[in-house]
Amino acid sequence: MEHPENDSEYKGLQVNEGVVPLPSVNPYATFRRKKRLLTVEEYVAGIRGGDISILGQAVTLVESSLPSDQAVAQKVIEACLPYSGNSVRVGITGVPGAGKSTFIEALGMQLCKQGNHLAVLAIDPSSERSKGSILGDKTRMNELSTAANAFIRPSPSAGSLGGVARKTRETIVLCEAAGFDTILVETVGVGQSETAAHSMVDFFLLLQVTGTGDELQGIKRGIMEMADGIAINKCDGTNVDKAQAARVSFKNALALFPPTESGWKPYAETCSSVEYTGIDRVWKMVTDYIDFTRKNGYFDYQRSQQAKYWMYETIHQSLLDSFYHNAEIEQLIPQYEQKILNNEISSFIAAHELLTLYGAKPDK
Amino acid sequence: MEHPENDSEYKGLQVNEGVVPLPSVNPYATFRRKKRLLTVEEYVAGIRGGDISILGQAVTLVESSLPSDQAVAQKVIEACLPYSGNSVRVGITGVPGAGKSTFIEALGMQLCKQGNHLAVLAIDPSSERSKGSILGDKTRMNELSTAANAFIRPSPSAGSLGGVARKTRETIVLCEAAGFDTILVETVGVGQSETAAHSMVDFFLLLQVTGTGDELQGIKRGIMEMADGIAINKCDGTNVDKAQAARVSFKNALALFPPTESGWKPYAETCSSVEYTGIDRVWKMVTDYIDFTRKNGYFDYQRSQQAKYWMYETIHQSLLDSFYHNAEIEQLIPQYEQKILNNEISSFIAAHELLTLYGAKPDK
Repeated sequence: MEHPENDSEYKGLQVNEGVVPLPSVNPYATFRRKKRLLTVEEYVAGIRGGDISILGQAVTLVESSLPSDQAVAQKVIEACLPYSGNSVRVGITGVPGAGKSTFIEALGMQLCKQGNHLAVLAIDPSSERSKGSILGDKTRMNELSTAANAFIRPSPSAGSLGGVARKTRETIVLCEAAGFDTILVETVGVGQSETAAHSMVDFFLLLQVTGTGDELQGIKRGIMEMADGIAINKCDGTNVDKAQAARVSFKNALALFPPTESGWKPYAETCSSVEYTGIDRVWKMVTDYIDFTRKNGYFDYQRSQQAKYWMYETIHQSLLDSFYHNAEIEQLIPQYEQKILNNEISSFIAAHELLTLYGAKPDK
Repeated sequence: MEHPENDSEYKGLQVNEGVVPLPSVNPYATFRRKKRLLTVEEYVAGIRGGDISILGQAVTLVESSLPSDQAVAQKVIEACLPYSGNSVRVGITGVPGAGKSTFIEALGMQLCKQGNHLAVLAIDPSSERSKGSILGDKTRMNELSTAANAFIRPSPSAGSLGGVARKTRETIVLCEAAGFDTILVETVGVGQSETAAHSMVDFFLLLQVTGTGDELQGIKRGIMEMADGIAINKCDGTNVDKAQAARVSFKNALALFPPTESGWKPYAETCSSVEYTGIDRVWKMVTDYIDFTRKNGYFDYQRSQQAKYWMYETIHQSLLDSFYHNAEIEQLIPQYEQKILNNEISSFIAAHELLTLYGAKPDK
């Protein structure tokens, strides 16, 4: 089997064009197939040698839903595992309008100039190209996408949150094995992607903007308490006073939160992605956190917890999928929901009847 | 089969002694059996007639893990369902030291004096009598436990969180069918019980105390953003200024949170449970919320969502229990965890190998 990325007409995954617009239709129908599929060893050697083109092809395998691709992908991942882990993983979230793309561009350029190797990934199961999915628009990270040591990859465009998150997490492994030392994982701040991202990064950054509160409309409650730090973006022009006042407000609010499990005290910084100011302060917050948690042992502890979390999460998702994709169950669920809403049946009896049908033993 | 509550020596569930210390060992071994088990019809008639003793016996059935008891309990619940729902359900959380017991006593006495019929329940899967479980100590709600129209029931003392929460939720149905118009559900603010409680109440109240932040040590992050309101307790004596300053701080912090799904804007009130001040303001917050959400439709919407939630939650818990109680899986889990921590296997391969062993189809 051949892959579209091996096709000479496919320019997306070249190192200087990191942002690849994902094909919105079946790529196998869209691109001519020319080259042979690489072997597991070739993928691993290419990744380990820092070949961005091969890395990109391997990520495409990870994202593929073809069982034959998955079989190869899993072997590649397993071979890369021993070389993974040597990076700082940072989750970045914020509603549309918070300026995530320009912030990541500004931060990314700074990191690249400092010699870092930067991979920018995303989790956004809802993304559709027509809706302007995050990272989907190449022009939004114009400069960074042409940087030599940056690898930008849009969110896998199809599948459940669990599936998309799994692919992003596996892509982290491949990027680390390829020598990327800094991984940014972007989410949109409006759904459950944040929990998934939070479970695969070391530091979780919430990007905010100042204003009357309207800008916060889109963000999901609970995310603020997940954050290890807040960056108040767009601190520029006539907005400086407001942004600085917001920093104080957030500082006070964060002080009311209970301590984090890591012992770290989250705080807020201001920055401007267009004027390139404060970006260094935001990144210092991240590196301070990494130093702090490496010293007190939380860094490794969290990584271990996360690795186990993804095993359990995959098991749970799979068990639930089997249940809800059962034809009989699928048909009966709406009826049971209605009975519950009519007070004709208790939620627990409904569950047990469905479970009995499914053949599982009801919970005691 | 007979039940301990039917035994004349068992005084716990009399109306004027609402707080029943749960037996720490198998009650069936501890109490002599004398009276016959009531029929489903007798339970339902007793509950509907407001017979607190029969209500208490029915709750004991709900809490029992004996299949024969559960069969009767589920029939009783189903018969009570059409008469349930006519209450205001309030979740109350706060760390030990926040003064939950005295607050509930003060609030409860006020509600009883106003003619309300009050049931106080709890979710605390970790509770053990020796550790001073919530509501377990009768002396902590001395006055309320002797009030004529109050029914106080400690947390079921054994079982998983899911099991304990289910029992509490089913007890709400029975209490409502018995005519209780106000249900308080207490949790300890340190674990996952808050999510469970939040999923069965209309209003979720966070009880805080003032101080340097030490008092917050125990509370779990994320709970503050779950709250529909905050009550700052112990606003008395030399603590008044600090409590009022805290109210302003929390007010400002809450204003930074994104809006709630209900459209309600959570705020903070001060109160003193020992001086009986501000309790009315806290309760007004609850009733204002109820009025607000009844008018905009959120009240009924949330109730429907909750009823469905518990069906799905029960299904999920049962599917997971079946998996993890599988002897082979139970034995292999620690080995797989270790392999993951050693980077010998990816979290996803580990999950799929275990799922294959279990016979389930792996998630794609």
